[in-house]
Formats: sequence, C-alpha cells, structure tokens
Amino acid sequence: MKFVKSLHLKKFRQKYDIFVVEGDKMAREMLAQSAVAIEQVYAVEAWATTHAGLLRERSDLELVIVTERELSQMSSLTTPNQVLAVAHKPNWEWPSLPHFTRALYLDGIQDPGNMGTILRIADWFGIPFVFCSDTSVDVFNSKVIQASMGAFLRVNTVEIELAVLLERYAGLPVLGAFMEGLNAFDHSWPEKGILVIGSEGEGISANNLPLINERVTIPKGNPNGAESLNAAVATGILCAAWARVNYE
Amino acid sequence: MKFVKSLHLKKFRQKYDIFVVEGDKMAREMLAQSAVAIEQVYAVEAWATTHAGLLRERSDLELVIVTERELSQMSSLTTPNQVLAVAHKPNWEWPSLPHFTRALYLDGIQDPGNMGTILRIADWFGIPFVFCSDTSVDVFNSKVIQASMGAFLRVNTVEIELAVLLERYAGLPVLGAFMEGLNAFDHSWPEKGILVIGSEGEGISANNLPLINERVTIPKGNPNGAESLNAAVATGILCAAWARVNYE
Repeated sequence: MKFVKSLHLKKFRQKYDIFVVEGDKMAREMLAQSAVAIEQVYAVEAWATTHAGLLRERSDLELVIVTERELSQMSSLTTPNQVLAVAHKPNWEWPSLPHFTRALYLDGIQDPGNMGTILRIADWFGIPFVFCSDTSVDVFNSKVIQASMGAFLRVNTVEIELAVLLERYAGLPVLGAFMEGLNAFDHSWPEKGILVIGSEGEGISANNLPLINERVTIPKGNPNGAESLNAAVATGILCAAWARVNYE
Repeated sequence: MKFVKSLHLKKFRQKYDIFVVEGDKMAREMLAQSAVAIEQVYAVEAWATTHAGLLRERSDLELVIVTERELSQMSSLTTPNQVLAVAHKPNWEWPSLPHFTRALYLDGIQDPGNMGTILRIADWFGIPFVFCSDTSVDVFNSKVIQASMGAFLRVNTVEIELAVLLERYAGLPVLGAFMEGLNAFDHSWPEKGILVIGSEGEGISANNLPLINERVTIPKGNPNGAESLNAAVATGILCAAWARVNYE
C-alpha cells in the first residue's frame, strides 16, 4: 500500500513505469482495454462482487480486497471511491518518419485539467501523438487521467525535449500557437507536422522559439475583449482548423 | 461580514443584485473598470497601502481594513488572499432586435471552470450576450468569476428560459451543438443568431430541442476516439467557426 501511495509521485511512476487509476468508471474502462497490462486491482468487497465477471476475464491481474479505510489511505482523491488499479504504462513505439502524421508538443502545460482536456482533443481529432516538455504536468498524474476521460489510453504520449524530437524527425513542419501569426483559418496547414502549444502565462519557451517554422494565431473578434483564451480551448480551435485539411 | 459571507449563495446575490470578487488580481481589475459600481473593499492594511492610489480614484466605495483572519472568515477560497470587493452586478440593457448580434445560450453548464472559460471565449470572439438556463451555474459564483479572467465584466449575461428569450427575439436563427448535425466548418452560419450549448453529460434539454432550427456538429477525426469534447472546448471551436463568417 505504501508502494501504491508512492505512485502519486511522478518520480516513482517513472522509475517503475506504472501508474494508478482511481474510481469505478476509470477502473472499468481500464479493465475493458485488453491492451493495458494491469498489475493489481484494489477494491472493496462490494465492488469486486458486482464486477466479478469483468475481473474474471483478466487473468493477468491480482485482485486485492481492501476496506474503505485502506483504500482511502492509498488514494489521492478526497472523496471516497471503491476501487483503484495499478497498471503498466501503455507501450510506446516510435513511428518511422514516413508513418509520422500529426502531433502536439505541449510546452509547459501545468494545469492537470487542461492537460487531460488536451489529450481528449487529440483523441477526438485523431492526432495520435502528444509530446510534452518536462515543465508540463505528468500525463499519468491522476487528475490528468480523470480529465482525459480515457483518452490517455489511446493517445501516445512521451516526455521529450522538442530539439531532441526534431533530431529524430528532421524536416517535419513545426507550427506554433502565438498571439500574433497567420490566421489559423486561412493558413494552409501541412498534412503532417508538429503543433507546439505554450503555457497560458508564458507562451512557448525561449529555448523552443527558434525551432518554430510557422506561427499561427486565432483571430480575436473583439479588440477590447479577453487577453487570451484558455490553453485547452486554444488547442481545440487550432486542432479543428488543422483537421479541416482532412475534411476537405 | 455575515452579509458578505451570505453572498457566496446565489439566492442572496440575486436578492441584492450584488456579488463578491476575491483576490488581488480580480480586485485590481474591478477597481480599474469605472463602469462597475463597487460598494465595499475589504482589504488587509498592507494591500490598502500598496494600492492607495487605485483606491483614491474611486470615490464611490467604502474601504474597510480587516485582519487576515477576518478576511478568511468572509472568503470562499481556501488559500489566503488580501482583498475582497463587493460590487453591483453590471447593468444589463436588452438590445432591440435590430441591434441583436450573436449570443450563446448555455443549457445546463454546471462546472464553474467551464462557465468561466466560456465567458472568456465569448469575450475573445466578440459575442456580446451569454444567456443561461436556471440549471446552469450562476455567472456570479466566485469560481466562475475567477475562471472568466474578467470576461464576466465585459460580456452581458442573464438567466432566462430559452422559450422566453425567443418570444422577445422572434425570428432569430437558433443553432444547437449536437453530436450529429451539419459540419460546423462547412455550415453557412448566420450573421445573427443564438447558439445553444448543452451540458456534457445530458446535451441540450428536452424542453429546448423543439426550439432549435439548425443542428451543428464538430466532425470527429478518429472514429474510435473520445466520445465527446469538453463543453468549453466544443463552445470555443463552434464560436471560432461562427466567427469565420466575419473574417471572410
């Protein structure tokens, strides 16, 4: 149980390459995904009884019956829940350059809600890769997992420096979201490429600015209006504009 | 102080037509908006000294120096802050039909973060009116105010039933966000109209369905991807698509 608790810290998740999901809905979603290797399920007896069928189909996992008190000691949530699962991070395979399609690069997205929402956006628009700077919140943080509504299982994510990523995929167009740039809706988006999103407060980091080939922006309808959009909302609008390349 | 505390409840905000903003950034933003009538500012001495100039320009308000302990008793925030202001809700004037441009109608948006983010979107895209069902979270809820980043001061909001709104503005196109409908990016959006956004879980309420003239949707790029988008993200994408009418 101490071990499970340690997994609320990123360094232990990275060390063992495993993570925790909490709550009934997420646990059921994980169990239904045969591609995810689950180590243990810690559940209260009532939950295990109700979902005996679902558990029986997964011979790979160890079921541990716990009391509500034990569960709350392992949990990072403030409200009580009935189940918690420990699973291996999904396997990641680097695509070869010809198989690389579209990706996001998140440069300093720190809010877990925004990070989860962005994974959901990538999943919706069929953007298969989301790369993150080490200044971004960890994708396997339990609040990110919750906000992603399962998208973290379908979108490939990896923490990597943008410069290192571009050594691997030299020649790919690198777009960046800026307050000033080409109108995202008039811009001829490339079919393949990487879109870099900075943090709401700081924007794209100084290190990464020289790596951007094209600056895109979402035109403001009201010159006296809001100074900026929420980072996840801006990402959604840019991904929708990019996806139009494929609709048309 | 009891009175200020009571304003954390919607019924008291509605009864007196006033509301509370908390924290240094929001208080300064309020003070800078001469159009907002502020009743009182409750501040710790240090804050009042630092912002003496800003306070002096506002002869309309009463400054009350409080201790941190008193402030935390009035506050709805868990983290300490230095200032809290009580203000009158901005004046609302119903536009005549020829002056009505674009509006959102929020049907059951309950998450304060989403509501605030949507006000920020309306503000960014120059959508001057945001109407809300009584099943939506109150716009003057302190979490909404925080998430709106000041947009609640610039966007006109009112709680009203959609049917009642349409009696006043008969003949305006009423669009609705749906999982299936016309592609938002191929659709010829009207220059004037009302876009109805439902809740993430329930969508547009059954009562309001017959009032919708046109169903619009955000095409999904990945058939096996996320079931839905976050409500604020979907609103942002639809508003961006609608705004294109004006860019072009």
